[in-house]
Amino acid sequence: MTKGRIEAFSDGVIAIIITIMVLELKVPHGHDLSMLQPLIPVFLCYALSFTNVGIYWANHHHMFHAVHHVGGWVLWANLHLLFWLSLMPFATGIVGENELGSVPVALYAFDLTMCAVSYTLLVMALVAQHGRDSDFARALGSDAKGRISLAIYVVSIPLAFMAPVVSLMLIALVAAVWVVPDRRFARAAEPH
Amino acid sequence: MTKGRIEAFSDGVIAIIITIMVLELKVPHGHDLSMLQPLIPVFLCYALSFTNVGIYWANHHHMFHAVHHVGGWVLWANLHLLFWLSLMPFATGIVGENELGSVPVALYAFDLTMCAVSYTLLVMALVAQHGRDSDFARALGSDAKGRISLAIYVVSIPLAFMAPVVSLMLIALVAAVWVVPDRRFARAAEPH
Amino acid sequence: MTKGRIEAFSDGVIAIIITIMVLELKVPHGHDLSMLQPLIPVFLCYALSFTNVGIYWANHHHMFHAVHHVGGWVLWANLHLLFWLSLMPFATGIVGENELGSVPVALYAFDLTMCAVSYTLLVMALVAQHGRDSDFARALGSDAKGRISLAIYVVSIPLAFMAPVVSLMLIALVAAVWVVPDRRFARAAEPH
Amino acid sequence: MTKGRIEAFSDGVIAIIITIMVLELKVPHGHDLSMLQPLIPVFLCYALSFTNVGIYWANHHHMFHAVHHVGGWVLWANLHLLFWLSLMPFATGIVGENELGSVPVALYAFDLTMCAVSYTLLVMALVAQHGRDSDFARALGSDAKGRISLAIYVVSIPLAFMAPVVSLMLIALVAAVWVVPDRRFARAAEPH
Repeated sequence: MTKGRIEAFSDGVIAIIITIMVLELKVPHGHDLSMLQPLIPVFLCYALSFTNVGIYWANHHHMFHAVHHVGGWVLWANLHLLFWLSLMPFATGIVGENELGSVPVALYAFDLTMCAVSYTLLVMALVAQHGRDSDFARALGSDAKGRISLAIYVVSIPLAFMAPVVSLMLIALVAAVWVVPDRRFARAAEPH
Repeated sequence: MTKGRIEAFSDGVIAIIITIMVLELKVPHGHDLSMLQPLIPVFLCYALSFTNVGIYWANHHHMFHAVHHVGGWVLWANLHLLFWLSLMPFATGIVGENELGSVPVALYAFDLTMCAVSYTLLVMALVAQHGRDSDFARALGSDAKGRISLAIYVVSIPLAFMAPVVSLMLIALVAAVWVVPDRRFARAAEPH
Repeated sequence: MTKGRIEAFSDGVIAIIITIMVLELKVPHGHDLSMLQPLIPVFLCYALSFTNVGIYWANHHHMFHAVHHVGGWVLWANLHLLFWLSLMPFATGIVGENELGSVPVALYAFDLTMCAVSYTLLVMALVAQHGRDSDFARALGSDAKGRISLAIYVVSIPLAFMAPVVSLMLIALVAAVWVVPDRRFARAAEPH
Repeated sequence: MTKGRIEAFSDGVIAIIITIMVLELKVPHGHDLSMLQPLIPVFLCYALSFTNVGIYWANHHHMFHAVHHVGGWVLWANLHLLFWLSLMPFATGIVGENELGSVPVALYAFDLTMCAVSYTLLVMALVAQHGRDSDFARALGSDAKGRISLAIYVVSIPLAFMAPVVSLMLIALVAAVWVVPDRRFARAAEPH
């Protein structure tokens, strides 16, 4: 089994997920600027979800670059991750169209939690395939950033019932941290 | 004719099928958890269909890995399979939005039956292309798992008119059997 | 400019076109088989359009296999073809949801005509790029099949105003002729 | 990090953007030609947006052909461009369904402006990665065409409030200029 086709399929699914989210932005009817006002929360949620899905794509991209062989549970761990990512357009629509209510934001945080959990399971399946002493396992390191992100997602589920806007701001903060290019990867990408 | 572009096109179509199914999950409006209740059957159907389409992708992937050349009817046998797979989002929507009624579940089982039939036809077209004594034909083996799955799909069509939930559970059981990684493929994927 | 990325982009667009057509099949609500009756014309149109788009993909695939270099107007001639193909889901929806009326069928035939015209323009751009004495131009031959198809599409536009069903049957006949694997290509695909 | 997967992902996203725009063309119901009349502005906007997105794909394609390595901010600059491109179906729908009103056209011009700005940022990130004296930077040249296009987009935002149709015509003019194949690229694509 070659990793190329898993990468291609994942790229395809993630590309579709990141793009069909825009279908949640319903075309308004009107002639003055006030017609855009109810779209502002939907637009912000769209931008946040676009960033989150983009981060998953970038991390998936980086990780598979170091992968040598795939097999066993890797295929299903990858599909499991894609499943939770595929719910992002739905979760985004719920938050945007319900005035940032508690249940919608909690659901959004829950989906991000499941994405992070399934990403962790994918990492574990890949490490099991390569062995703990492999180059792959060493390149991953301790992944403290991933663990802290997961912890914040978990916390933002109950937080949504108290302060949904704070919960979303925490999620946006995690996204901002991931967008800043990782020193290690940046260094590896430099010409030798 | 190269197999690469058939694989790429099939990956693209399957990636879109598996992702646009989420558009059947209509965004609910409300502020408490009860707003999610009517979505539960739709969500479960979505998860079942995601798994089924994922299984087809994985099997397609494995089979084409062993393919050496394509031609004649292979292209159309492949498009025929993609046709029935492309109806999965529609069949999923019908089951999910009609309280698991008999006709919807029978239709869902019918589409899975046609997917299995068209997959079998694709296998036959590929065997005809490679010859019965080829490595490809040997690698396929007797495909007892595929035949039994097809038989269960056929049975679940009339069963849907008596006990639609039992019919869906049978279908879910078949999916579960396919998700467990196949020993033979797992072994082939191990590093030599 | 490499032909690989044009092929990949075209594959992507055609894969999306062929798949989002299924979104025209609106999920019905009900519990008995009669709920499926109004869907029959939409389903048949979907099957016809799926076949037509599949034929364009297969022909595009075959033709680009023989292409050596692309440039100048080829990129735009290709995008022009994709433009008219991208209107197939719309044309399919119009025919299926308007009881096979005259104007809808004429519009459908018009879109197929424009697809055939733009495909011919793409062929001309590629021949201009390779030269009339190139292997590419020789492999194409006279393309009588393509010319006759275009002529039938043109005829089926006015015919739709007299007998829309006959017009659609002519279009289906053309599709059937293309699905039968071409002897020349089949021979070329055989192992040497 | 390889440029191949960034190209593949960008191709996927752009292919989806260019194709799902057709979903804004709502299927009309009726039996005579007058049913098509309200669709004319939507269709023209669709054609204009299809052309614009096609131009971005072609330019992206050409530019990455000359790219040697990617890293640091390039990934995010690319996602940023895809973000604004992904809003094209939405902007197209707003213009088409609101009788070419001032606010919709201004919004459309704004999205094109942001696409041009983000494309410029992507170019800057790539130049920073390769160095000002690299082959890549020399191949780009001064990009006067890109700067003038951006300037026209910026001008067409306020212009939309005075004469929305003139604003759209300016935008269409810019598109027409880009479609004419660039002498330099055409020459590079010729067989040596």
